[in-house]
Amino acid sequence: MKTVKLVVIGAGSSYTPELIEGVIKNHAQLPVSHIALVDVEMGKEKMNIIFQLTQRMLAKAGLAIDVTQTLERKTALQDADFVVTQLRVGGIDARIVDEKLPKSYGFIGQETNGAGGMFKALRTIPVIIDIANEMHDICPNAWLINFTNPASMVTEAVLKYSRNRRVIGLCNGPINMTHQVAALLNASIDDLYVEFQGANHMNFITKILHKGEDRTREVIALINAADVDTLSFKNVSNEQFNKELLAATHLIPSSYLKYYLKTTEMLAEQAAAELSRGEVVKNIEAALFKKYSDVSLEEKPKELEARGGALYSTAALNVIRAIYLDDKSIQTVNVRNDGAITNLPTDAVVEVNCVLTRNGPMPICTGEIPSPAKGIVAMMKDYEAQIVKAAATGDYQALIAGFIFNPLCSSDNAGVALVKDMLRANKKYLPLFANTIATL
Amino acid sequence: MKTVKLVVIGAGSSYTPELIEGVIKNHAQLPVSHIALVDVEMGKEKMNIIFQLTQRMLAKAGLAIDVTQTLERKTALQDADFVVTQLRVGGIDARIVDEKLPKSYGFIGQETNGAGGMFKALRTIPVIIDIANEMHDICPNAWLINFTNPASMVTEAVLKYSRNRRVIGLCNGPINMTHQVAALLNASIDDLYVEFQGANHMNFITKILHKGEDRTREVIALINAADVDTLSFKNVSNEQFNKELLAATHLIPSSYLKYYLKTTEMLAEQAAAELSRGEVVKNIEAALFKKYSDVSLEEKPKELEARGGALYSTAALNVIRAIYLDDKSIQTVNVRNDGAITNLPTDAVVEVNCVLTRNGPMPICTGEIPSPAKGIVAMMKDYEAQIVKAAATGDYQALIAGFIFNPLCSSDNAGVALVKDMLRANKKYLPLFANTIATL
Amino acid sequence: MKTVKLVVIGAGSSYTPELIEGVIKNHAQLPVSHIALVDVEMGKEKMNIIFQLTQRMLAKAGLAIDVTQTLERKTALQDADFVVTQLRVGGIDARIVDEKLPKSYGFIGQETNGAGGMFKALRTIPVIIDIANEMHDICPNAWLINFTNPASMVTEAVLKYSRNRRVIGLCNGPINMTHQVAALLNASIDDLYVEFQGANHMNFITKILHKGEDRTREVIALINAADVDTLSFKNVSNEQFNKELLAATHLIPSSYLKYYLKTTEMLAEQAAAELSRGEVVKNIEAALFKKYSDVSLEEKPKELEARGGALYSTAALNVIRAIYLDDKSIQTVNVRNDGAITNLPTDAVVEVNCVLTRNGPMPICTGEIPSPAKGIVAMMKDYEAQIVKAAATGDYQALIAGFIFNPLCSSDNAGVALVKDMLRANKKYLPLFANTIATL
Amino acid sequence: MKTVKLVVIGAGSSYTPELIEGVIKNHAQLPVSHIALVDVEMGKEKMNIIFQLTQRMLAKAGLAIDVTQTLERKTALQDADFVVTQLRVGGIDARIVDEKLPKSYGFIGQETNGAGGMFKALRTIPVIIDIANEMHDICPNAWLINFTNPASMVTEAVLKYSRNRRVIGLCNGPINMTHQVAALLNASIDDLYVEFQGANHMNFITKILHKGEDRTREVIALINAADVDTLSFKNVSNEQFNKELLAATHLIPSSYLKYYLKTTEMLAEQAAAELSRGEVVKNIEAALFKKYSDVSLEEKPKELEARGGALYSTAALNVIRAIYLDDKSIQTVNVRNDGAITNLPTDAVVEVNCVLTRNGPMPICTGEIPSPAKGIVAMMKDYEAQIVKAAATGDYQALIAGFIFNPLCSSDNAGVALVKDMLRANKKYLPLFANTIATL
Repeated sequence: MKTVKLVVIGAGSSYTPELIEGVIKNHAQLPVSHIALVDVEMGKEKMNIIFQLTQRMLAKAGLAIDVTQTLERKTALQDADFVVTQLRVGGIDARIVDEKLPKSYGFIGQETNGAGGMFKALRTIPVIIDIANEMHDICPNAWLINFTNPASMVTEAVLKYSRNRRVIGLCNGPINMTHQVAALLNASIDDLYVEFQGANHMNFITKILHKGEDRTREVIALINAADVDTLSFKNVSNEQFNKELLAATHLIPSSYLKYYLKTTEMLAEQAAAELSRGEVVKNIEAALFKKYSDVSLEEKPKELEARGGALYSTAALNVIRAIYLDDKSIQTVNVRNDGAITNLPTDAVVEVNCVLTRNGPMPICTGEIPSPAKGIVAMMKDYEAQIVKAAATGDYQALIAGFIFNPLCSSDNAGVALVKDMLRANKKYLPLFANTIATL
Repeated sequence: MKTVKLVVIGAGSSYTPELIEGVIKNHAQLPVSHIALVDVEMGKEKMNIIFQLTQRMLAKAGLAIDVTQTLERKTALQDADFVVTQLRVGGIDARIVDEKLPKSYGFIGQETNGAGGMFKALRTIPVIIDIANEMHDICPNAWLINFTNPASMVTEAVLKYSRNRRVIGLCNGPINMTHQVAALLNASIDDLYVEFQGANHMNFITKILHKGEDRTREVIALINAADVDTLSFKNVSNEQFNKELLAATHLIPSSYLKYYLKTTEMLAEQAAAELSRGEVVKNIEAALFKKYSDVSLEEKPKELEARGGALYSTAALNVIRAIYLDDKSIQTVNVRNDGAITNLPTDAVVEVNCVLTRNGPMPICTGEIPSPAKGIVAMMKDYEAQIVKAAATGDYQALIAGFIFNPLCSSDNAGVALVKDMLRANKKYLPLFANTIATL
Repeated sequence: MKTVKLVVIGAGSSYTPELIEGVIKNHAQLPVSHIALVDVEMGKEKMNIIFQLTQRMLAKAGLAIDVTQTLERKTALQDADFVVTQLRVGGIDARIVDEKLPKSYGFIGQETNGAGGMFKALRTIPVIIDIANEMHDICPNAWLINFTNPASMVTEAVLKYSRNRRVIGLCNGPINMTHQVAALLNASIDDLYVEFQGANHMNFITKILHKGEDRTREVIALINAADVDTLSFKNVSNEQFNKELLAATHLIPSSYLKYYLKTTEMLAEQAAAELSRGEVVKNIEAALFKKYSDVSLEEKPKELEARGGALYSTAALNVIRAIYLDDKSIQTVNVRNDGAITNLPTDAVVEVNCVLTRNGPMPICTGEIPSPAKGIVAMMKDYEAQIVKAAATGDYQALIAGFIFNPLCSSDNAGVALVKDMLRANKKYLPLFANTIATL
Repeated sequence: MKTVKLVVIGAGSSYTPELIEGVIKNHAQLPVSHIALVDVEMGKEKMNIIFQLTQRMLAKAGLAIDVTQTLERKTALQDADFVVTQLRVGGIDARIVDEKLPKSYGFIGQETNGAGGMFKALRTIPVIIDIANEMHDICPNAWLINFTNPASMVTEAVLKYSRNRRVIGLCNGPINMTHQVAALLNASIDDLYVEFQGANHMNFITKILHKGEDRTREVIALINAADVDTLSFKNVSNEQFNKELLAATHLIPSSYLKYYLKTTEMLAEQAAAELSRGEVVKNIEAALFKKYSDVSLEEKPKELEARGGALYSTAALNVIRAIYLDDKSIQTVNVRNDGAITNLPTDAVVEVNCVLTRNGPMPICTGEIPSPAKGIVAMMKDYEAQIVKAAATGDYQALIAGFIFNPLCSSDNAGVALVKDMLRANKKYLPLFANTIATL
């Protein structure tokens, strides 16, 4: 039985213990023999804390897995089988800028949508493209499992602008929504087939089959019967979607659609919040790393849950295990469209159900996205294509064109001013835009 | 030389004298022998004023054209060659509701976009479908030239839900933009080819050729060099599009795109305006009809220009004359897509350049719409398909689904509440929604 | 554990013992509790022989499975879980006509291609549509597994012209080609992923992955290194495809492509054959049924192999078991395209890899078919759409239009004459064409 | 009024006097001031005869047009406005090989279809690509009007593999079919709209409108009422299409479809012919040039008609005049598809109706090609894409792949052998295949 080398890039993330826990739980089926932790100078200290915690966790589990830590990415990539990227270029401070600058313009400030998400893409994409190309040269058979947001754009960038095709974009959104549906129906996950259509953070449940029976409308009725959003991501909002809207469309939107369908409400929530989500997370993380440093801690602490990222580890290990075992399980991941959604370009990256094989994820045909989801997803994929181009090539015109047409930009003049402010604020993370920024 | 019978439905419109002037000017090439004015009870008085003015105008021009007025539409349709619809279901008062109710929710209130445009579609489409079906039975070779907004949706409704295929949706937007481009370049219209892509009030100039040379970027530079919007429709706003946006996209959006790209600015203008556009128009119209009633008036009065609708008559007569003469001129009209824009459904109605023949308008292939226009147009056509369905069939779910996903609806809850208010306010013009309204 | 009722329509087929053997072998995983044999008057006697043999086989296997036989199809369909259709309208004698009449015109005479296949479609489709509709009413959750050729056309007819969507077209071609590839590579089937694109009897292996590695070109080299066709169906021909052709295209065509790519050679083989394949089969069947009648026979006799249909039972049981167990195995079946092959209509039936679930087969996206397969498959699917229409509606014009453009029809005049002869010869099986035939 | 320089490449063609006659007839509207005749060494003598005849023709017409002759193509291209290519690489002798070698294999031997047409493409395409690139550099605003067959493939090659986009492929087929339809209906060409769909020599009349009325079926009835093919090209065959076929499809195929729909009949005609068409033409041409040399000849001789090419000059001048005058006439030419036929790739070259403007031909949307034409055209365009690739890049695999799947290749083995023989026979005209030929 071939053993597995797992490389974790951005290992200084507070999420890493969750991933380690997943490795431990899956070890019987997925014989990981080496975990290589990688981070950059800025994350060195945190990585070291994680490194030691990882050793304690593995010791407690009685598993003899090599653990290494390094700042030398290329060295770590040698003989890799799976590479998980969970890096955050610029750290939480960059995220806080993503949230606060847009807010100052009266726009949504969020790390994966609108101006914030766009600048996260600009910072992240060139780094992930570099990693993808290095993998192509050093460990060409390894799979890149990318968790860094915005996941559809990052994956699309790798597929369009790197030499590497072995990339999967992963988000814990679909698996959480599936679990929430199961809870609503009081059903086993194994008896459910939940069809997703769309892109990352821009997707919809379009069909729910339980033991072969279509129960979509029943689930919508259950959602509408509740007083709080029962299919929500904690980091977005508990505000419910309008009940008539769900009943009229027979679609269940991802929580992130609230930024588009409840913009007024989200702006009000944002205005009311004393701290941005990034600031909250920063505090949580500080506490977490204090906890992680405690040498008596030998497992993932409860407190990690407050950080968000539920089922993050499950999602990651499900994909890795499926590829390793060629188990043909169906999972919802970000891949090249290739006809999975017939009304989107074949080279767009979409978040759809795939059968997972040793040859990677193979998307399952879903036909067109039903209206009215069809229109907004088509629009957002056009927007994403432009931002991906801007991020990968430093194209300022694509950046302006893309953002102003994003429905979250409610004013062209404010939008252009915001883009310039954001460019200046992110200067050190945007080498491709250095000349542009110099002339602003 | 075959003579032409022209039927004008909604003849009590203040625009009719402009149309009559067009008939007079084109008479040498287009031998109109009968103008049949048609209106409903509500417009009877205005129609009579128009009827008498028309007789005076024709007398002054020395043309022996029969003019009739009637409330019996089917009688008027006998032997018709061209039928121009310029009716307004509910009159100006309905328009004022379209503008003021959405405004009360903090939304754009406008007669062709957002909630207002949607309800104009709901009121108008069943009436135009009836006319189209009557024409199919009574004068099957006649062409329906529809001016009533929202023109793309109305035309799409006729093509999808009536038995009649001989319909053309017409707007004076493209011809005005073309004239404005000609003025900027100090060029003759005959030397220009201006490519439009999109749908009515949702379109873009994507290419400007002057004597075969591409001068698109030069025109954009000229637009940006000015201090006011030089390619504007007076009834929208004089606010300029952001100059960097135009420079980045190489696209010239229709003024109506301001509602989407400058929502904040348009909401501010709307808030600042004492009277809605409908209220302004109502005053203008009162003055106009007073003028029209003056028996010494024998031609279109200067004051009509303040009403808007520049080149309305030119646009209408260009199309009618082209079909009559089979003159192969290229004009921008609303027709079934059929591949003209490759990334839109074949059965969507688009506003594109067509060659005009005795067999009607034939769309010219333009390929894909360039990004970032691609995304918003795809989105809006998906929205329009739903509203067309709602209007033609009374489908409340399609109405809710469509409107909430319209980018001008910034809150699902407010949107649903507004739709219900609008339904109630338009009750007498929405027979297909009678049951729905009864249960609200 | 829910038990399974299996209905076999056309149970008097000589293949049935193979299916029974499959049921026996799979019983641990697939608890069949009732096998309902159904046939028509013409097959009554054969069905009875099969019925008794089935009982002996099950007794020998020690399985307490109910076996029934009936001519009352609707009765048999009560509570069905899976319905396998392997009927042959008109029996072997109709097949012999399919082979001999075209041959008399110098055309290919074959039961699934050209004029023969077309008339098999005309005879079969109305019957299968009736079965599909009865299932929809009587056992709406049951799956129709259709083995009757031409499988793509029959499946497309059910999907386009019946009320039933739960249909899968099945052919033993892909499973045999996959086994042959495994043999060439000396590999385990489980380590292979063989991608098929196209339609039934008009498909191509476009990719062969072995343990994740692309070995397509190696397999082609192995095929070309042999002196006989190593990827052949016995019932077609042993003639090899031209070796340069395989090397140039990197595609492995199904043996049935020989009718199109080696027409001259196939016509020569046909001319040289004393007996048509149908006549050979008739003799084999007579001997088989004699054997089946032997009360000492308690298992599938060796002689059945000469009949063709290798792995027929495996293919059928793989599909049934996968749906029953929701096992997510990947199998190559005939389904609605829905984007699986992006250059074919979404409503065409294609033979592609699907993941098999309790919700039926879900096609895996494959993108475009590579040229030069792209052209011929597009052509044949257009042809099939017309024949399906002709078969389901009795449209003579679609029949003529379709056949004359089929590349196996080398003369329009001869083609029309042949169609008329075939119509007359099949008169009693073509009620929808009764009026047409009366006027020939 | 700007004067026009016309360059004729392949000026030694016997067709040139027809073109000159067209220039003379159109001079009032199209002020040609310079005709530059160009040919290669091999055609020098013939060009000189044409040069002198041209001077006599212009003198007789009283037109002061400069006429020059040269072997220096680049010199001639200076200041060109229109460049007509009517060259024949390898001359009539190469054509005779195109006809006779395939015939020796039992295949259709024809200069634009099957193996012959394919090798004509291989010889021609690199030369036309060179011309297109030279034009791009020397006279970038000039239009290339290509008459050299196979016209769709040559045009597609220029659009895909040269830097020049200003190319129009022209064939006299559509204009002749249109005239023949007019004759059948006893109608004026000006009152007709004849819709063509397909590619060059692979197209269909799909609709005939006369004064706005659809008379397609009436024309088909008139064709079927005759005893000979009334819509034929003399150089193909007088054999009629099967009458039931035309009635069933409501399509009128180009005569060249006989090679596909009446292969047997065409092979029989070919077998019966003592001389190939190329040999006949060679004799006609010898006689023609003798005639042309007669210094008393001052106009196009009657005998040229036997050469074929009816309306060649009309077709060419119609296009040139339309572009010069921006006259918006509708003509059927070979252009990039771009959605004109929705079921074909956007980058395929199709022969469709275009509106002719100073900006070149703009294709008119026609939707899908109706079945059964849909299938064969899709197939042939896939074939053509491969041959274009082979011709432009020397790709032997594309050549083999393309030809074997062409329906005119009835045996893969014979097809491969024929391709090799043809390569050897055309060695000196196929520099891109030099290495391939060396290893055959």
